[in-house]
Amino acid sequence: MNTLEVDINCDLGEGFGPYTIGDDDAMLDIVSSANVACGFHAGDPVIMDNVVRQAGLRGVDIGAHVGFDDRAGFGRRVIPLSHHEIETAVLYQLGALHAIATAAGHRVTHMSFHGALGNQSFVDPDLARVLVQATRAFDPALSILVIPETELERATERAGMRTVRTFLADRAYDATGRLVSRRIAHALIENVDEIAARITQMITEGTVRSIEGDLLKMSHECILVHGDTPRAVEIARTVRTTVERLGARVAPISKKDGQPRIPAK
Amino acid sequence: MNTLEVDINCDLGEGFGPYTIGDDDAMLDIVSSANVACGFHAGDPVIMDNVVRQAGLRGVDIGAHVGFDDRAGFGRRVIPLSHHEIETAVLYQLGALHAIATAAGHRVTHMSFHGALGNQSFVDPDLARVLVQATRAFDPALSILVIPETELERATERAGMRTVRTFLADRAYDATGRLVSRRIAHALIENVDEIAARITQMITEGTVRSIEGDLLKMSHECILVHGDTPRAVEIARTVRTTVERLGARVAPISKKDGQPRIPAK
Amino acid sequence: MNTLEVDINCDLGEGFGPYTIGDDDAMLDIVSSANVACGFHAGDPVIMDNVVRQAGLRGVDIGAHVGFDDRAGFGRRVIPLSHHEIETAVLYQLGALHAIATAAGHRVTHMSFHGALGNQSFVDPDLARVLVQATRAFDPALSILVIPETELERATERAGMRTVRTFLADRAYDATGRLVSRRIAHALIENVDEIAARITQMITEGTVRSIEGDLLKMSHECILVHGDTPRAVEIARTVRTTVERLGARVAPISKKDGQPRIPAK
Amino acid sequence: MNTLEVDINCDLGEGFGPYTIGDDDAMLDIVSSANVACGFHAGDPVIMDNVVRQAGLRGVDIGAHVGFDDRAGFGRRVIPLSHHEIETAVLYQLGALHAIATAAGHRVTHMSFHGALGNQSFVDPDLARVLVQATRAFDPALSILVIPETELERATERAGMRTVRTFLADRAYDATGRLVSRRIAHALIENVDEIAARITQMITEGTVRSIEGDLLKMSHECILVHGDTPRAVEIARTVRTTVERLGARVAPISKKDGQPRIPAK
Repeated sequence: MNTLEVDINCDLGEGFGPYTIGDDDAMLDIVSSANVACGFHAGDPVIMDNVVRQAGLRGVDIGAHVGFDDRAGFGRRVIPLSHHEIETAVLYQLGALHAIATAAGHRVTHMSFHGALGNQSFVDPDLARVLVQATRAFDPALSILVIPETELERATERAGMRTVRTFLADRAYDATGRLVSRRIAHALIENVDEIAARITQMITEGTVRSIEGDLLKMSHECILVHGDTPRAVEIARTVRTTVERLGARVAPISKKDGQPRIPAK
Repeated sequence: MNTLEVDINCDLGEGFGPYTIGDDDAMLDIVSSANVACGFHAGDPVIMDNVVRQAGLRGVDIGAHVGFDDRAGFGRRVIPLSHHEIETAVLYQLGALHAIATAAGHRVTHMSFHGALGNQSFVDPDLARVLVQATRAFDPALSILVIPETELERATERAGMRTVRTFLADRAYDATGRLVSRRIAHALIENVDEIAARITQMITEGTVRSIEGDLLKMSHECILVHGDTPRAVEIARTVRTTVERLGARVAPISKKDGQPRIPAK
Repeated sequence: MNTLEVDINCDLGEGFGPYTIGDDDAMLDIVSSANVACGFHAGDPVIMDNVVRQAGLRGVDIGAHVGFDDRAGFGRRVIPLSHHEIETAVLYQLGALHAIATAAGHRVTHMSFHGALGNQSFVDPDLARVLVQATRAFDPALSILVIPETELERATERAGMRTVRTFLADRAYDATGRLVSRRIAHALIENVDEIAARITQMITEGTVRSIEGDLLKMSHECILVHGDTPRAVEIARTVRTTVERLGARVAPISKKDGQPRIPAK
Repeated sequence: MNTLEVDINCDLGEGFGPYTIGDDDAMLDIVSSANVACGFHAGDPVIMDNVVRQAGLRGVDIGAHVGFDDRAGFGRRVIPLSHHEIETAVLYQLGALHAIATAAGHRVTHMSFHGALGNQSFVDPDLARVLVQATRAFDPALSILVIPETELERATERAGMRTVRTFLADRAYDATGRLVSRRIAHALIENVDEIAARITQMITEGTVRSIEGDLLKMSHECILVHGDTPRAVEIARTVRTTVERLGARVAPISKKDGQPRIPAK
């Protein structure tokens, strides 16, 4: 029987010039894949290069973490763009990371849409299609990180591209499988024991309990951890330890192509 | 006997958001290759995409026109960067254009260094090496536009990469083959008849007369015209008509690989 | 009897670094007041300084033309900001112009809200109040340019500050007194004879005919002309000539404090 | 006899959007004056507003900390600007802070030049004059923070404006009174006991020992502490405690106008 394989993924490279967010190198010791900010909502060429090289040394997958061109708002504000503006902005960021990775002897394996752009892609089918088609026009072999049951997942599947369904270990889900807004109490799970318990349930039973108490099916493909919170490194270590204690193997998406997938639903 | 082939090249895509510089589409009807601003000193993803697609339709080569990240200064100010900052900035811009070109079914054939970065590359051998190595690390098949007898030309040749030696039809040269500074009288040649005469001499005799009156050898590989002056389109048409009347063929660099080159010296 | 006095107003200083929009100096020969872009949606310190000094030499009033911090979108996109972010952004821009004006021996007399920020201020009473209160907190003697019958007008009056009601000579109004969207046919009036006829009716009868054919009351306080269209200078001259032929005097707002105002409605 | 009064000063407000540098509020509990980044090299309107309001509540003076428009380089890179560009950039930043302060019921008392701009102002008499004249053109009552024996000090005195001579408690001086470059060993003094000893000597004897061992005269007007190092708050508290233990009073510059000044040399 195959060993279960789980990707642990994190947004990294979110500093800028003199500014730092999170500890990229420490997180790269724990995760198996990283989404690299591409200089629009965060990141800059030097920081991108560092994350790419450190990831390469550790066998960590890298993806383009693409967002709105809005450093002041950290990509969390919706900037009203035409589809053509979004399409070209996606290609621009993806290509920038691709070149830095190529020069470093590494390669981009996936895409991840940040902040307000990501949130829109979950509910707006036209935008989701634009994001997927722009990615596909550059490289149809790229995977796309998705929240299950969203327009982005549907658009990715429709385009015949590979989805990576992410599970957020430290965020509450509602009964429909959506993330509970951070403004709601208990949306953020900060207790490491509770996080470990959720991961255990997700891996052994393929489920997670919603904030209302319902049981939801959940894929174990990819656990997303945060790199920008004060206890990020500690939580990420808990996640990894928990996964490994359950007998699963932490491996980047690109290394587990042959593995049978558990449907999200 | 082979027909002589000459590339007519222009910097394009130098607008930004609501701002326009030059008439990209009109120039693309005349030139055979274009250097596309990559969003650092000028340009943005939408403008890049337009130049790339219009160039593709016309069989015009595109290159990455890479500069300092300084829109306010249009890349004409030296920004003191480390070699590592420059290397990653070159890759970032080149990759951004590469992805936009790939999605549009076109491809990047060459590199051109803009403004203050270009000027430094002519005289600083370390910087020239950094620029060439960054380009090479992404794609050693790219050509690099050079002014003959500069550090950039030497670094390109040393790296085993292809140079494209440019001739500026509307700029005076001094006895050493350097461009005369725009601050000096007669540095800019604005009379179209004089421009036509210089091109004729360059193509038929392989020479240009310096501002001091000396005869300099000059390659006919590539004539650089400007796209950002009031009479840019008229001058570019004069250049093309002159080249064609002499029996030469206007062709992008990438289409004339087999052609014997006339040494610059 | 008093001579009728009309302010002719224009948005100026909308270039940036190497980029130019409109001919600031030519327009300053025609208008009596100018709204100066303050470096967020357009403009930069050098351009601001030039407009301020040229305005000062000609006795032209200057106002702060405040917008979203979005050069790429020219302030025409709604950037979702908190009221606190908007308040401090207004103060920042206004203060920047104030200091440049002070150093040049000129002074800021009014405020004008640009693009998407202005459009929001017409319909959102809370935003209108924030904009007015931020202005008032710096200097309650400033006037605020308004479109009549908008939330911005109401908020300005409620704060006890002076409104300047603008008439757009080259834009169609609907029956409710709102500007017809540029996307609708005939929203833009480009015929100079028609523009002259509208101004004549507005000044002699205090009315304008809506796109549906209704007669609307219209204040003659301030005619807004555009500086960024190809025929901007010609249209502005037509406006001024028409006003003067009718026996009215072109004068900036700050010079006509004693004049009886004609109510907008 | 008058109690000795010493200003403790710090650069604050150096965050940007989602990014934080230092703990502004904690430092404002310790210092008596703050230099507020004005949105060019660091800072943004919301951060500026917070520092201004928190300073106001505590009776802390605020100054405009003006630098090159270069967030990526944090104002530490020389951007080659014309004198006219520098002059207008100074006014822009100073005015922005002035308006935010005015709206908050506080006022700007001084100027401080950041990073590469400050370093240039110490050695370039023309630049120093431009900086001082731009400041003076807005408000001749502003003080200017200087390093003693620099071109900036001379230009300020020549303009008849008030200097505030700063002493850097945690930086070594050379025999000429210049700061030792951070690249040199022992340029940075990190031991709090040593910092306390230097302050004691400076206040009781008016001297500091150079890195070579010479005794230099040093003004006690203003001690500059850093807000952006890991132990910034601890070091600042040590400075304040040391000053107070010596019987001196910590007071902002603007509160000690009547005090006799000790010449720097």
